[in-house]
Amino acid sequence: MKKNETIERMLDHRSIRQWKDEPLSVEIIETLKEVAIRTSTSEGMQYASIIRVKDPAKRERLVEVSTQKYLATAPELWIFIADNYRNDRIYRENLDEDNFSNDADKFFQAFTDAAIMAQNVMNAAESMGLGAVYFGSILNNPQKTVEILELPENTFPVVGMGIGYPDQEPELKPRMKADFRIFEDRYEKMDDYHKLLKDYDKEMSKYYDLRVKKKPLDEFTKQVEDKYKVQRTDRSKILRVIRNQGYNLDI
Amino acid sequence: MKKNETIERMLDHRSIRQWKDEPLSVEIIETLKEVAIRTSTSEGMQYASIIRVKDPAKRERLVEVSTQKYLATAPELWIFIADNYRNDRIYRENLDEDNFSNDADKFFQAFTDAAIMAQNVMNAAESMGLGAVYFGSILNNPQKTVEILELPENTFPVVGMGIGYPDQEPELKPRMKADFRIFEDRYEKMDDYHKLLKDYDKEMSKYYDLRVKKKPLDEFTKQVEDKYKVQRTDRSKILRVIRNQGYNLDI
Repeated sequence: MKKNETIERMLDHRSIRQWKDEPLSVEIIETLKEVAIRTSTSEGMQYASIIRVKDPAKRERLVEVSTQKYLATAPELWIFIADNYRNDRIYRENLDEDNFSNDADKFFQAFTDAAIMAQNVMNAAESMGLGAVYFGSILNNPQKTVEILELPENTFPVVGMGIGYPDQEPELKPRMKADFRIFEDRYEKMDDYHKLLKDYDKEMSKYYDLRVKKKPLDEFTKQVEDKYKVQRTDRSKILRVIRNQGYNLDI
Repeated sequence: MKKNETIERMLDHRSIRQWKDEPLSVEIIETLKEVAIRTSTSEGMQYASIIRVKDPAKRERLVEVSTQKYLATAPELWIFIADNYRNDRIYRENLDEDNFSNDADKFFQAFTDAAIMAQNVMNAAESMGLGAVYFGSILNNPQKTVEILELPENTFPVVGMGIGYPDQEPELKPRMKADFRIFEDRYEKMDDYHKLLKDYDKEMSKYYDLRVKKKPLDEFTKQVEDKYKVQRTDRSKILRVIRNQGYNLDI
């Protein structure tokens, strides 16, 4: 089957971490904003917002959190926010009974809204020949990111994105086969992932990441093992920061 | 500026809740699967999986959770899963020290992976003339959904999606302006949202939702107020179920 252009582009997705020194036009930015606000949203509540970070000082502070220097060089830097503040205020403006805006249910609706909005912006950007990358690293220290963006109660940063005209051509990164990830009717546990993923491991160990000079990446299973050896203290405290933002996280 | 086809389609997104009785071809399903696994993923860890629900009995049980009957009629019903099980097993197969797979950090990476994967599938489906809807309602009772899908430890259902050929033409639902949701450098709190959203409220009160016969929807601010009056007990316990799935949620 011939694939349409939208899908060809999605299948060709690469994270772009180096951009031309060329700003995005006002028209392109307006288009990305329109796409963002048209994204699906839980029960129509529009629980996601965006902070577009232009201030160089704020960008530098975010680099300190993320440890990724290229964050500061992105022509556009957008942070997607789970936002229960706005609707909470709408409720309180006219009604004075206690409300339940800040329970975990509403938090997760907002978190999901923000994540899917980010992916919509990613797809729209790529459709216009732009290149983008996610910054999950803004959560290396969620409390600092909250402070830098001056986020009020009942809001939380979900993920960041750098967007611009690509100035690099990374290889397409190998992914494990769909059979490992897409199941029918029930989750399918497998025995001996190391054995089953042998071919994928081989493929990965031929992949050159532009951030790591001169040698290909480790096998996938090795990457996983290395990742799981370390607990990242500030990242692991994410729920504490969410609670400090005013959400009721009673279990 | 002329908008490209991908973006035109994103701006024209409507939730489709009624589908033609026509299955998706194998080719289309394979394409959607490819798009799913090519979605961006946190640190390359591929923490998202999908359960494609075909079993009519399981679909009926999910209808009981969601209370949305049309869930059972979707030609394709996909549930997107935050999946730390697979990598947890990869770690444990060769290494016997304690691991930290199940902290909140890894959970949120997986949750985000699953949400953005869902939006990628949504965009791919719509680009092929299909219509889809999110089922956030699978979380009306997260524990039951976990049981129905036989989800192992360190996995959690994020959102569902029904996909098929559209058999209805809903109006485009009004959204609040970008100025309320997209800010520069810091979150912008506003005074008197009721006043500021007056025009949007008016627009919303002319919108007909196909699920509500014969009268338009309430004003947006009224919808918010009604939503915030009720706490949904099972939904609010989402963190308890996540913890029961083996994640360490110590705050």
